[in-house]
Amino acid sequence: MAKPIITLLTDFGLSDHYVGCMKGVILGIHPDVEIVDITHEVKPHDIHEGAFLLRSCYRYFPPRTIHVAIVDPSVGPHRRPIIATVGEHIYLAPDNGILSYIYEEGEVSQVIHVTASHYFLPTISHTFHGRDLFAPVAAWISRGIELEKFGDPVTDFTRFQMPRIKQVNPKILQGNVLHVDKFGNLITNFTEKEIPRGESGETALAKVLVARREVTSVRTSYADGSPGEIFVVLGSTGFYEIVMNKSSAAERLAVGRGAEVGAVLK
Amino acid sequence: MAKPIITLLTDFGLSDHYVGCMKGVILGIHPDVEIVDITHEVKPHDIHEGAFLLRSCYRYFPPRTIHVAIVDPSVGPHRRPIIATVGEHIYLAPDNGILSYIYEEGEVSQVIHVTASHYFLPTISHTFHGRDLFAPVAAWISRGIELEKFGDPVTDFTRFQMPRIKQVNPKILQGNVLHVDKFGNLITNFTEKEIPRGESGETALAKVLVARREVTSVRTSYADGSPGEIFVVLGSTGFYEIVMNKSSAAERLAVGRGAEVGAVLK
Amino acid sequence: MAKPIITLLTDFGLSDHYVGCMKGVILGIHPDVEIVDITHEVKPHDIHEGAFLLRSCYRYFPPRTIHVAIVDPSVGPHRRPIIATVGEHIYLAPDNGILSYIYEEGEVSQVIHVTASHYFLPTISHTFHGRDLFAPVAAWISRGIELEKFGDPVTDFTRFQMPRIKQVNPKILQGNVLHVDKFGNLITNFTEKEIPRGESGETALAKVLVARREVTSVRTSYADGSPGEIFVVLGSTGFYEIVMNKSSAAERLAVGRGAEVGAVLK
Repeated sequence: MAKPIITLLTDFGLSDHYVGCMKGVILGIHPDVEIVDITHEVKPHDIHEGAFLLRSCYRYFPPRTIHVAIVDPSVGPHRRPIIATVGEHIYLAPDNGILSYIYEEGEVSQVIHVTASHYFLPTISHTFHGRDLFAPVAAWISRGIELEKFGDPVTDFTRFQMPRIKQVNPKILQGNVLHVDKFGNLITNFTEKEIPRGESGETALAKVLVARREVTSVRTSYADGSPGEIFVVLGSTGFYEIVMNKSSAAERLAVGRGAEVGAVLK
Repeated sequence: MAKPIITLLTDFGLSDHYVGCMKGVILGIHPDVEIVDITHEVKPHDIHEGAFLLRSCYRYFPPRTIHVAIVDPSVGPHRRPIIATVGEHIYLAPDNGILSYIYEEGEVSQVIHVTASHYFLPTISHTFHGRDLFAPVAAWISRGIELEKFGDPVTDFTRFQMPRIKQVNPKILQGNVLHVDKFGNLITNFTEKEIPRGESGETALAKVLVARREVTSVRTSYADGSPGEIFVVLGSTGFYEIVMNKSSAAERLAVGRGAEVGAVLK
Repeated sequence: MAKPIITLLTDFGLSDHYVGCMKGVILGIHPDVEIVDITHEVKPHDIHEGAFLLRSCYRYFPPRTIHVAIVDPSVGPHRRPIIATVGEHIYLAPDNGILSYIYEEGEVSQVIHVTASHYFLPTISHTFHGRDLFAPVAAWISRGIELEKFGDPVTDFTRFQMPRIKQVNPKILQGNVLHVDKFGNLITNFTEKEIPRGESGETALAKVLVARREVTSVRTSYADGSPGEIFVVLGSTGFYEIVMNKSSAAERLAVGRGAEVGAVLK
């Protein structure tokens, strides 16, 4: 039988001992688990970025993977830890909205408020629940403890709206930059639903408006762009991206997450 | 039976091949071992930072974990590699003081000067003992080779003093910033021993003096602070921290490791 | 039997979901594989740096290790993915020259153009073959699928020349900086072949010329240098390095990869 998998997505960074502590706690409870880092470089306290990254990778893991997502500026005795079962995956996170995009990705079977403190470390700090609460609970889940044992179901869990596309008129849509990746690609919230793409790859997109510029080239992959050209591709997350070939569109346009993006259809 | 665990803590960074080489060597000798990265982002050559991070995480790993800690500015034929058994854990490191804080954490059963070169790689560089000496020795330890086989015991191993608290008068203590974490939290060397905390969480602390400022708020967790406020929490490492809510106290105060911190008791 | 090992070397960085996705895909196809990160911090699109780092670590892994190396600025439908068997190792990469240094390291038994798309993910993006093509193919290789099943052999694979040493006269050689590591050590392309070293460690090197400076000290290890001194060591990659003791020679000399380095022999 395959080992259970626990993924970790946090803003703890890689320069401190924080992530190592979590792994030690997990392996102490369940030595036969596979721990996979998604990232620990979410911008500090940036719940939206964490939500986007989690949404962008969960589906590439096998069913029953346990995804631990901790961007947790309100860590402490008052904010609730939750276990959510959505589609075929299990999520463990603070109830602060970091699972918002996940809730839109599948059926939310149940959300449990984790209160069963005998599954926590014996001493709980008020500042590092990743180590003291989330790591041990993830390990116990991976050992097969039924989710109901960790607490009671709740229905009033926190979810914020993913930025929505606004239809300005039949030909003009208004969206946003959802994420800037490390190459400086601007990942927008436009998908094939709003901007259909034909069999042969041509899209309904006439142009994109961003940072007071018109971007009229739509291409298939990054390498198709000319040097210095800003253009659009349908990216690997399912969202359209504003990019450059071997350069950073984010730097060139001086644009970051949240920036408004207009799309004009043909 | 659980796999043996080897943790790695270095200043090798993640942008070169150095850490990958170490893991290749370990897995070539013992394929059935669990390798866990604590961090590879210790500031270059900063033995004190390495010592602090190792002290802050070892206890979260199961007994018999092998902790490899390499911040090794004096790598070469003259500096001794050592294996230390302290409490229930095993440490492998250059004998340059990086285990100093560990020696204070439990009984030091034995410290061995590693000389048995048949456990090293066949060719030893003078600049990368992490790969050529520490990685193979860690792997052989994890395979169960008795520690005595690696060399003779020594008693004159290097240890520097952890910065001590000075008692200025019955109400005033003088301490230091031990570590600045990636959130900009200033981790001091004050613990509950010097600044007791009552059952209900209230401490004996009247105020803290740092960077010519008085910090008078003591709170339970980061989220309890008002925007812009600098305050004190008892942190997850057991040390008091000077922090802000969702901001960097280190940046705001322009203070780094080693900075003096005064504590005034009630 | 030991688990098969897959190593990953990319320029994807650690702040996005990209590497996590690849690992999820691999574990979904083959749960019983050991995944080792070499680095994901190759400078964006820098094929030469990727080639250098791969060459510097492959040999420390056991035979039959599968090395996945993706620095892939020309990702898309036109650039070929290849599997190369060189010496005792297997390499999976875009055919863009990233395996150039590897081809010089052993017998190139075969290079296969990967076309068998039933081993890819069902949907292939045009911008992230790491996830959609390389990860699943690596996983299937690790499960023992014969390499011939992935496509046909090719002989016209891309290889660029490693920078060569020029012999200016019997005593003067002209080389380059191959890589700058995170400590600021300048790794040149001079080896013991061009600059022999005697039994007792003394070399044939009289001095090195770099950035309009003469460097005349040759030492055994980093710690042998005086504060502020720039000197030469024979480094752990087999190349001579221009270094400082606990400082960055790259910063001090304001020199980067590709810089010319002269060597004057005794």
